[in-house]
Amino acid sequence: MSKKNIALDRLTTIQNHISNQPQPTGPIDLSRERENASFSVKHMNWLFWGNKEFAEALQDAYLIIQRDPDLYFPGGHPFDLTIPEQREFTMKQIFRYRQLRKSLKNPLLLKALALAMCMYSESFNMKIYVHDDLFLQSFQLFGTAEQYDAYIDDILNWKIIGCFAMTELGHGSFLRGLETTATYDRETDEFIIHSPTLTATKVWIGMAGQTATHTIAICQTIIDGKKCGTNWFIVQLRDKKTGKLMPGVTAGDLGAKYGRNGLDNGWIQFSHIRIPRTNMMMKWAKVTKEGKYIPSINPAISYSTLIGERLSVLGTAISTCGQMLTIACRYGCVRRQGANDEQIMEYQSHHVRLMPCVASTYVIGIVNRMIINKWEGIMKLTQTNQEEFVSYLPDMHAISSGLKATLTWWGCEVLERVRRSMGGYAYSSYNNIGGAIGDWGVVTTGGGDNFVLIQQTARYLLGSLKQVSQGKKITGTVEFLNDIQQILSFTKSTLSDERQLLNLDYTLEIYTWLLTGEEERWNDNQVYLIKLGELYSYRFTLSEYIIGIKGYSTISQFKELVPILNKLGNLWAIHLIHDSLGLFLEEGYFNGEQAKMIKKCYLKLCKEIRKECIPLVDSWGFPDFILKAPLGKYDGDVYPAFLNTIKAAPDCIGVPSYWEKYIKNLTNPK
Amino acid sequence: MSKKNIALDRLTTIQNHISNQPQPTGPIDLSRERENASFSVKHMNWLFWGNKEFAEALQDAYLIIQRDPDLYFPGGHPFDLTIPEQREFTMKQIFRYRQLRKSLKNPLLLKALALAMCMYSESFNMKIYVHDDLFLQSFQLFGTAEQYDAYIDDILNWKIIGCFAMTELGHGSFLRGLETTATYDRETDEFIIHSPTLTATKVWIGMAGQTATHTIAICQTIIDGKKCGTNWFIVQLRDKKTGKLMPGVTAGDLGAKYGRNGLDNGWIQFSHIRIPRTNMMMKWAKVTKEGKYIPSINPAISYSTLIGERLSVLGTAISTCGQMLTIACRYGCVRRQGANDEQIMEYQSHHVRLMPCVASTYVIGIVNRMIINKWEGIMKLTQTNQEEFVSYLPDMHAISSGLKATLTWWGCEVLERVRRSMGGYAYSSYNNIGGAIGDWGVVTTGGGDNFVLIQQTARYLLGSLKQVSQGKKITGTVEFLNDIQQILSFTKSTLSDERQLLNLDYTLEIYTWLLTGEEERWNDNQVYLIKLGELYSYRFTLSEYIIGIKGYSTISQFKELVPILNKLGNLWAIHLIHDSLGLFLEEGYFNGEQAKMIKKCYLKLCKEIRKECIPLVDSWGFPDFILKAPLGKYDGDVYPAFLNTIKAAPDCIGVPSYWEKYIKNLTNPK
Repeated sequence: MSKKNIALDRLTTIQNHISNQPQPTGPIDLSRERENASFSVKHMNWLFWGNKEFAEALQDAYLIIQRDPDLYFPGGHPFDLTIPEQREFTMKQIFRYRQLRKSLKNPLLLKALALAMCMYSESFNMKIYVHDDLFLQSFQLFGTAEQYDAYIDDILNWKIIGCFAMTELGHGSFLRGLETTATYDRETDEFIIHSPTLTATKVWIGMAGQTATHTIAICQTIIDGKKCGTNWFIVQLRDKKTGKLMPGVTAGDLGAKYGRNGLDNGWIQFSHIRIPRTNMMMKWAKVTKEGKYIPSINPAISYSTLIGERLSVLGTAISTCGQMLTIACRYGCVRRQGANDEQIMEYQSHHVRLMPCVASTYVIGIVNRMIINKWEGIMKLTQTNQEEFVSYLPDMHAISSGLKATLTWWGCEVLERVRRSMGGYAYSSYNNIGGAIGDWGVVTTGGGDNFVLIQQTARYLLGSLKQVSQGKKITGTVEFLNDIQQILSFTKSTLSDERQLLNLDYTLEIYTWLLTGEEERWNDNQVYLIKLGELYSYRFTLSEYIIGIKGYSTISQFKELVPILNKLGNLWAIHLIHDSLGLFLEEGYFNGEQAKMIKKCYLKLCKEIRKECIPLVDSWGFPDFILKAPLGKYDGDVYPAFLNTIKAAPDCIGVPSYWEKYIKNLTNPK
Repeated sequence: MSKKNIALDRLTTIQNHISNQPQPTGPIDLSRERENASFSVKHMNWLFWGNKEFAEALQDAYLIIQRDPDLYFPGGHPFDLTIPEQREFTMKQIFRYRQLRKSLKNPLLLKALALAMCMYSESFNMKIYVHDDLFLQSFQLFGTAEQYDAYIDDILNWKIIGCFAMTELGHGSFLRGLETTATYDRETDEFIIHSPTLTATKVWIGMAGQTATHTIAICQTIIDGKKCGTNWFIVQLRDKKTGKLMPGVTAGDLGAKYGRNGLDNGWIQFSHIRIPRTNMMMKWAKVTKEGKYIPSINPAISYSTLIGERLSVLGTAISTCGQMLTIACRYGCVRRQGANDEQIMEYQSHHVRLMPCVASTYVIGIVNRMIINKWEGIMKLTQTNQEEFVSYLPDMHAISSGLKATLTWWGCEVLERVRRSMGGYAYSSYNNIGGAIGDWGVVTTGGGDNFVLIQQTARYLLGSLKQVSQGKKITGTVEFLNDIQQILSFTKSTLSDERQLLNLDYTLEIYTWLLTGEEERWNDNQVYLIKLGELYSYRFTLSEYIIGIKGYSTISQFKELVPILNKLGNLWAIHLIHDSLGLFLEEGYFNGEQAKMIKKCYLKLCKEIRKECIPLVDSWGFPDFILKAPLGKYDGDVYPAFLNTIKAAPDCIGVPSYWEKYIKNLTNPK
């Protein structure tokens, strides 16, 4: 190159640097966004996680995880682990977590550590959940005092590792169709546990694949050749020392999955396994030594652990949707595009899709704590007042099923909106969106298929409506139906001013109207029944949220947060109404003008909340290492972070091992 | 065990076998379903793939793949391959495929083999597509005769492997914002290709990660310090022999992705690379030796390869949605659940979700061939009538963008419906649903972000409306707007009888009304603009399908298929109207009664088509090995197949390697 050329080249470079090289605008953008907050992010963080103490313990727990080489993903590349590596790493985390629990005595910190780890890894979450909740709760809810005492120490210390065997290959939602049998042998005072067919194979059982030593399994109890009912039985699966399968147990791993690959979902076949009669869970139904079957006061109790399981999904929704929305909102405020190089979050099509999701995460966060508290209170009744406990079950079954179905479907929608809002970058595993979608995938079917659950919920509501029409007074989450006459006294909406839409009690009334109107329509067919179940469940989130906010307005730290919480509630309410506009119009409740007013208000609220979207997602307080997405970094300096992450991946640069064999033979044929 | 016990045990087993053990009902179910066909599956298969000859060649191609150990996934477990293994295997398939092309001379069979391989593997599809279409077409569309002649032999024989470098880290959709520069050095008659910033890094470039030797890259052309326009330049990336990066090229692999992990998406940074001036693609814009820039007659030509890329997604939609719907429909007819042990496909909530998807796959299949034929005809004009070629671009850009955006969004919906219809079994990688969703994930953003594209489409439509309102006659896919006065002469629907809804011309008119009405609403805001773009694109699928069917009614083999094709079209039309009911009601076009009539008709059509759903999916003719899903097997004997697949996975049964380290220390603490 001539000297002149070199000079020209240099000049061009310098020109490029001066004229083209953009300064990293992300950090500036995000700090400007942060100035928009109308509220204290710190106080909102306390409110979101319950209170100051727990929010601070959570921060502490994040620190512990990040410092511990056994808990923290090595090298920050969890997405490059193979499935066997993920399995081993998750079990290593659990082992370390168990050790830590013994050294950290502070109960608040322990609770925070559990939550933080579950938010860090869905596979960890499910493994811990299966043993510490499903398995343990089964002993609390179904076991006699003797059974509880005999097992509790081993369970609490993970000296046995338990799983929960319900679903079979041929039957999921229809539990009465389960095929696994427990046949009583009076002679030896034993049950014989058996999978009589291929379709009786228990499947999808979390931790049955490689790690569980024990299971409780639901079986058809057979005495003298007659089916008496479905009950739970304790069966050992593996030798506690060697890990080898017990005689009569065939169990294996379900292999590669769409998500949660650190969890060993498995399958189990029982072949004539003999267990003592006392391995049947006998708090409710019993079998005597003589082979007499004493039924439970209510067979629904057998499935009451599932109420907790369904409600637990709300926590997963907060964690997953909250994390993904944090990434999407930050990236949306950093990414610039178009002729004026605008932040893409400024585009209406962008923020209109994301802001209702942000609002919903606040609603679910607050409602979740309220309903979990309620259920924990009810569970305590099993020790004090069994009849009262049983009386709560239908209502709790209905609302937990409804919430689980609607909010997991909504979660799919949230994640899909996030995915699309990230442009092509959601396609990189290193931004965690694909991983989160995969992990989330199971929740619409696990713990009961949504389509089945939501119809059960709707039928409960229709039954309650019937009771009201017969003049009965009802309680529980359907209590509002007692006022049905008043609700239905309107056949057309009174909406005439946009400001009415910003009154939460008013929008709740509108939504309630749609739900209660025209009972016969709902009975008409399955598609409408599903819609009814959805309306009821969504209505519950709104009505509880209103109660929740009212509570906060009496707490001095949180009082100042009520205006923004109200606005988030408004958006959620109008989102719900907007989503059912077709139905309202069909029923003649709204006219076209009112519908347009609602749409306008919807767009306006999204735009207003967009202004505070960064403080709103910051308030959830997810650290970068939990988010695992360079494009969602707190500081906004996203592009170097993304490229550095890529470059640190194995074999990023270099000639691939297959070059000689397949490429060179094409490009340099002999 | 006492003798009596053994006897009891045996008796129980026998009883279980007699009373409980279900016969495998799947094969019986599916053969009964197949008896429901009102049409010849064989003839429908010919129609769907174009004609008898091609449909048969496709069957032949499936055979070839299945017999060839280099093309066929080893052991039937593609889902257990690691990412490096997937990369190598995909390149091995390409190598073998190149060899086969040389030995198989029959052009029809070669075309069928290409399609079959692309349907077999999306990673293979994308690699082949990048080189054989994007790279090759760039030479055809942008290259001079000399450039074409210089490279064509090497391209056709894969002696060079090419990729297509457009997207940058900082700019995707807004191409004028691209930062990579090509600075002309008059002295040496060279361009200097350079990435001046981090955000100028080319990203997501298919095959740039590990395998491409060359790229064409779009750059800002700079002459005498002035930006002249964006143009394409040929740059060598790797040494053809060693695979090592050329000096000045930094390129690497983007690593783990949500899907298509056999494809090496990569990133590229150029550092002052000198290329001869003649490496600029100069069919349209030119730079003379003197450094004079002669602009293109239309800068849109630079992006005309993207029209083909966007249309190609329709083919992927047919393959992906068709395969997944085959699996879902077969499983839905085999799976039994509920108190009467009914096929789940009998449930309204089930078939109402799947049948519109089946109908849409037929519509897209037929419309795809029509539009591809049209575009191939237009492309030939580049050799004969460049001005006419250019005149087609705006319309083709608008409709290809609109179809790409709407049909990829719809594809997401189809796959999500499939996923939910499989209960928990979609969660197993071995049923391919998760893999298909992952592979599909890129299409909503790749080839142009849908939100950006659909707005361009809508603006084109609004421009066309403006022309019509000025009294101009317009042509192309917006030609129907010429009749706008007649369309808008109705302000309320004339619908009074359900049978009207079964007339495709009538439902097309309804849909057209919504699209043309109230121009000012569409201008109002971005959210409505997106809706407008969708309506226009969906309307096109319906109007083209109607033309398509009319053509089939004149072909003797296919005449008998017209009734079922009509019914599928009816469902698609009513699905489209049903989906926009809210908007129709808001505009006062339909009243509540008419809306209810439409819903009723929708449910009824779904139920009718459900009766033939198995013959309808069988007609697509996807062999089991292409589907890769034991639960979607043709013979319906799904449960043993599923469990056998699981059992054949690595490490299905056995003590995991981490037992000693992490589990035994919990269950047997020292």
